[in-house]
Amino acid sequence: MRNLKIEIEYDGSRYKGWQTQKGNIATIQEKLESVIAKMTKEEIQVIGCGRTDTGVHAENYIANFTTNCEKTVEEMLDYLCEYLPEDIVVKAMKDTSERFHARYNVISKTYVYRINNNKYRNVFNKKYTCHIPEKLDIEQMQKAAAILVGTHDFMSFTTLKNKSKATVRTINYINIRENDGNIEMEFNGNGFLKNMVRIITGTLIEIGLGTKKFEDMKKILEAKQRSEAGPTAHAHGLALKNVQY
Amino acid sequence: MRNLKIEIEYDGSRYKGWQTQKGNIATIQEKLESVIAKMTKEEIQVIGCGRTDTGVHAENYIANFTTNCEKTVEEMLDYLCEYLPEDIVVKAMKDTSERFHARYNVISKTYVYRINNNKYRNVFNKKYTCHIPEKLDIEQMQKAAAILVGTHDFMSFTTLKNKSKATVRTINYINIRENDGNIEMEFNGNGFLKNMVRIITGTLIEIGLGTKKFEDMKKILEAKQRSEAGPTAHAHGLALKNVQY
Repeated sequence: MRNLKIEIEYDGSRYKGWQTQKGNIATIQEKLESVIAKMTKEEIQVIGCGRTDTGVHAENYIANFTTNCEKTVEEMLDYLCEYLPEDIVVKAMKDTSERFHARYNVISKTYVYRINNNKYRNVFNKKYTCHIPEKLDIEQMQKAAAILVGTHDFMSFTTLKNKSKATVRTINYINIRENDGNIEMEFNGNGFLKNMVRIITGTLIEIGLGTKKFEDMKKILEAKQRSEAGPTAHAHGLALKNVQY
Repeated sequence: MRNLKIEIEYDGSRYKGWQTQKGNIATIQEKLESVIAKMTKEEIQVIGCGRTDTGVHAENYIANFTTNCEKTVEEMLDYLCEYLPEDIVVKAMKDTSERFHARYNVISKTYVYRINNNKYRNVFNKKYTCHIPEKLDIEQMQKAAAILVGTHDFMSFTTLKNKSKATVRTINYINIRENDGNIEMEFNGNGFLKNMVRIITGTLIEIGLGTKKFEDMKKILEAKQRSEAGPTAHAHGLALKNVQY
């Protein structure tokens, strides 16, 4: 039995997130599984590194699947390139140890949230950046972000319905950079709760706009109440950048 | 009479280039003129910094127009943002000297041609990069490009129909950079003939693939024959990056 590790790039605009759902719902996992199943003539389960929300993109999503198919990696990549839709590309594939599990073995993940902070919309990246025409105060956002770095209970920053689940996570860094009005916020952590990056981003945007102060971030974190945080930022600005194993 | 200088970003995919043509043909100039005319309630002629081909993009296209309209620059920008199609954005506008002419005053222009040289297509930039899966030899391309720098008769690199037009131009630099399989070729010169950047690019691609040698570039240049050069590279990889005055 081969265990194949794959690296995927996808534009999430048309999909209801990564994970297969009941009913005839377009998801990345479902698309991949159906094309790989045709290629291998087997039933295939693709194990992803984690869920992504509806509309969220991925630049380097990692997954794995096991198969008895004897095609070479090159042949498989060519097949997938031909039969997957234009907005999903398997960029790389390799035979890996039978012990490799794309979800269990994750050490950390990096997400990037992109904001066009120029007054006027952008032509080229509008599908992948959130447009906020009002000037954001990057320094205040950076100060607020620093409060979240470390190991905390991120209950305030999730829409998880199952309250019994552990909500403690470690954020290793949040880097906020601005270049010519384009803001990139990079989040690295050992795991992120449902909607966590987008709710943190929504809160940081409120701080950048001045409707909240950077010191408020501490109170919001300690409140462990979703209602204390800012709104969930739009999905299309978010992309999974890469995964560390 | 005010003379307004504008900076435009456009995705050329849907348009037959910059310049207004006879008949009901979608061009950037025609779109801009019709929206500005509605805004100013005047007949408007927008003077562009030059033509761009069908399907070519622009990141910072410069144009100007004269008007008696008394709206502020802010009001005009807001109007244009609202009424122009999604793929054309006027990013900046300012009142300028009555002597400023977007075409006559150009000192030089910078174009960028983008190639995805990875084996598999790309999800995010496919509308703005040309996919060439076979590995290109960047060093050979750089050596060939160096032959073109300077003042030369570029007759071999144009599809100009009017043979009486002067075909001598000066290329100040051609920078070819590669990062993670993404190649950017930047061309700066005092002016470019019809299709010139795309024919040079097509020739450089042949050299990168090894079907032509870098030394051939000298013979091609000296031949002053379109048939000696390589094919015209696809339009969608090309963008006008900026214009120097």
